[in-house]
Amino acid sequence: MTRKLSALAFALGCTLSNSAFAAPKNIIYMIGDGMGPAFTTAYRYMQDDKTTKMVEPTVFDSILVGMAHTYPDDDTVVTDSAAGATALSTASKSYNGAIAVDTHKQSLKTMLEIAKERGMTTALVATSQINHATPASFAAHNESRRNYDEIADDYIDNKIAGKLPVDLMLGGGTKYFIRDDRNLVSEFKEAGYQYTDQFDNLDSLNRLPALGLFADVAFAHAIDSDEPKRLTKMANKTLELLDKQNEKGFFVMIEGSQIDWCGHANDIACAMKEMDDFAGAIKVAKAYIDANPDTLLVVTADHSTGGLTLGSNGVYQWKTEVVAKAKSSVKELTNTLFDMKADQMGKTWTQLTGLPFDKETKKALAGAQKDSKEALYKAANKLINDASFTGWTTKGHTAIDVPIFAYGKGRDSFIGSLNNTQIADKLISYIEK
Amino acid sequence: MTRKLSALAFALGCTLSNSAFAAPKNIIYMIGDGMGPAFTTAYRYMQDDKTTKMVEPTVFDSILVGMAHTYPDDDTVVTDSAAGATALSTASKSYNGAIAVDTHKQSLKTMLEIAKERGMTTALVATSQINHATPASFAAHNESRRNYDEIADDYIDNKIAGKLPVDLMLGGGTKYFIRDDRNLVSEFKEAGYQYTDQFDNLDSLNRLPALGLFADVAFAHAIDSDEPKRLTKMANKTLELLDKQNEKGFFVMIEGSQIDWCGHANDIACAMKEMDDFAGAIKVAKAYIDANPDTLLVVTADHSTGGLTLGSNGVYQWKTEVVAKAKSSVKELTNTLFDMKADQMGKTWTQLTGLPFDKETKKALAGAQKDSKEALYKAANKLINDASFTGWTTKGHTAIDVPIFAYGKGRDSFIGSLNNTQIADKLISYIEK
Ligand SMILES: [Zn+2]
Ligand SMILES: [Zn+2]
Repeated sequence: MTRKLSALAFALGCTLSNSAFAAPKNIIYMIGDGMGPAFTTAYRYMQDDKTTKMVEPTVFDSILVGMAHTYPDDDTVVTDSAAGATALSTASKSYNGAIAVDTHKQSLKTMLEIAKERGMTTALVATSQINHATPASFAAHNESRRNYDEIADDYIDNKIAGKLPVDLMLGGGTKYFIRDDRNLVSEFKEAGYQYTDQFDNLDSLNRLPALGLFADVAFAHAIDSDEPKRLTKMANKTLELLDKQNEKGFFVMIEGSQIDWCGHANDIACAMKEMDDFAGAIKVAKAYIDANPDTLLVVTADHSTGGLTLGSNGVYQWKTEVVAKAKSSVKELTNTLFDMKADQMGKTWTQLTGLPFDKETKKALAGAQKDSKEALYKAANKLINDASFTGWTTKGHTAIDVPIFAYGKGRDSFIGSLNNTQIADKLISYIEK
Repeated sequence: MTRKLSALAFALGCTLSNSAFAAPKNIIYMIGDGMGPAFTTAYRYMQDDKTTKMVEPTVFDSILVGMAHTYPDDDTVVTDSAAGATALSTASKSYNGAIAVDTHKQSLKTMLEIAKERGMTTALVATSQINHATPASFAAHNESRRNYDEIADDYIDNKIAGKLPVDLMLGGGTKYFIRDDRNLVSEFKEAGYQYTDQFDNLDSLNRLPALGLFADVAFAHAIDSDEPKRLTKMANKTLELLDKQNEKGFFVMIEGSQIDWCGHANDIACAMKEMDDFAGAIKVAKAYIDANPDTLLVVTADHSTGGLTLGSNGVYQWKTEVVAKAKSSVKELTNTLFDMKADQMGKTWTQLTGLPFDKETKKALAGAQKDSKEALYKAANKLINDASFTGWTTKGHTAIDVPIFAYGKGRDSFIGSLNNTQIADKLISYIEK
């Protein structure tokens, strides 16, 4: 858009939608797996600076533009991550479990494949194994998300216009890439990819194509990790590698994979640490756009997980200070407590949760420990959720609409209440321009 | 805006924000009490035309623009309806229970009062008693929402520039208006108000000022009522009475009061019928704006209620067909069943819920009936929620952000993630213009 047009628009008092003039050159697509509206709300209260009266807005608040409908292609209403990611990557609804295939198990073209066809540089980043449902639905096709080996194979077998589909992949999954029957890492190296499996050596990747696999399966939960900002770091590295590589621009999908997993575990502190890493990655993307305004950022979720509610059991409170004190996932806490003598649990319990080891706590934990590790997990989890007034209704997903965030060139196209397929439609139309 | 400017803006490919030119003349403010994002999502799935593959968008979807933060002025995070409505009407946060007063119990000027000062016509409409927390926070001031008599008194004692604050009130509450110590209905009549207490005679109100009180306290729940569309009808009547009365325009607040109450009852079918009435009222408002484009509609909620989730207990389903079959609130269902012999419950149960009266159902209901009416309520409610995979975590409120909807002149000001006080700030700035 020319400066003159800009000035005229300003004089008119109207908002110039850049999208009317040209498509963005680069697209950064971020998916918070399981990140329903309760998670983004909770994160704001967790981030609150308690020394001020106001609850400060988060990076999510700075770019919220709408909400998305997540239902899959059947009458269940509740989607899984595979059908969700397939809708978000291909603009077509499919069945739960589908990796970029339709209800007849026929391949659906993904926006990453279209971007590759058009000569753009492409990338996938996740804190799960890189062949997990969400990233898989951008560069592979399979009738089932469970076929992890076949999906990993697709990353090298599924040629787009004679080329490998993804120029940069960062995530976990060596277990699926180095197997008895096939060594995909060797094949990627032969195809010219730089490779590292050491997160400390992330910076050794200095050109494309490149592959980084930093865990056997997935990264550790942020809350249990020495690298709680691993997604933020990978997002930063990715944009550094993609920047100005290609005059046709780039497409990257960055997933906050484990928000969902903490949701499945009904573990609020675990979820909030994943949110913090995802928020960090969004800040990196926003800063990139501030320096490169011909870039569009769209952030959304595939569904919500756990039926999280802020407030429970009739009490009008949600206690962020309880959540903030947790120093490990409930799973790791349980592993630690399970091997201790019941009367020695107290110090560790209080150290890792910040909660008192009172009579009732001791009784609940010691009783559960005698029963089983699962019972101990349940008891510990209940104590933390009850103390913080955190509610959950399921170990699975729910159908609530999820937030849409957008920033940069073309952002206005995502304002309102959209079907998840409409998000993909609009992105594909930008890629095809 | 002139036609020429419009054409220029169109040629520029830019969206003209009307708000840049002038404030809307009329403001329709609608509050769905307790209507968190799970309720608007649920309503879409309930409304779905099952003969088509697509889940059709609702009237809410057609006007979604953002989400609002609902926290009150303390560290509880979870608001009640009084603090929520006070924020939405005065742009100031206060404590739970506050009716348009601050933390020091000093009166806060409401947007309805400002509208009245500026010579606009004002109205309040609700399906609760008209002196309930939400409408009260627009035209009365009290340190506690529980002081119903004092709040009703304020509607006639709280003069704005020598005039009564509200030109039209439609709702319930004769119990509070006709008391041993004071007859407010007589006082309103003496002040020139038309009055009716017969909903059938709603149309007898043909000029302003006017007062309609159609229930002792609140209307019956829509699901239990012969008039399930009572809010829609009152909205229609209200806009008919307000239309072109006053060159300075009007301000009206219309509340879907009982979405919240069904949420407190954890009664999904009850909530969906209230949503349907509220949606009908929104359609009326949208149609008014289509005919009167110098009008702004803003719709939001004060908070979410019940911790509603669509999907529960690990199952990836939410069964709208179960919810759709319910023919009475669980409360009325319980009242009916409680007086029956246990072995005669079957026919009524199936008639009112559409669910089979199998062995387990019979056992659960008969056992609970022996115990108490509360136990029977709990058992019946659990059977319906379990059959539909509807989750709830509390009989109270939760802190999740709530949707913001806007339509008409000035709509663009409400795009994004806003504090509830920011919604009020923007509306007040329009009223003051
Ligand atoms: Zn999941
Ligand atoms: Zn309530």
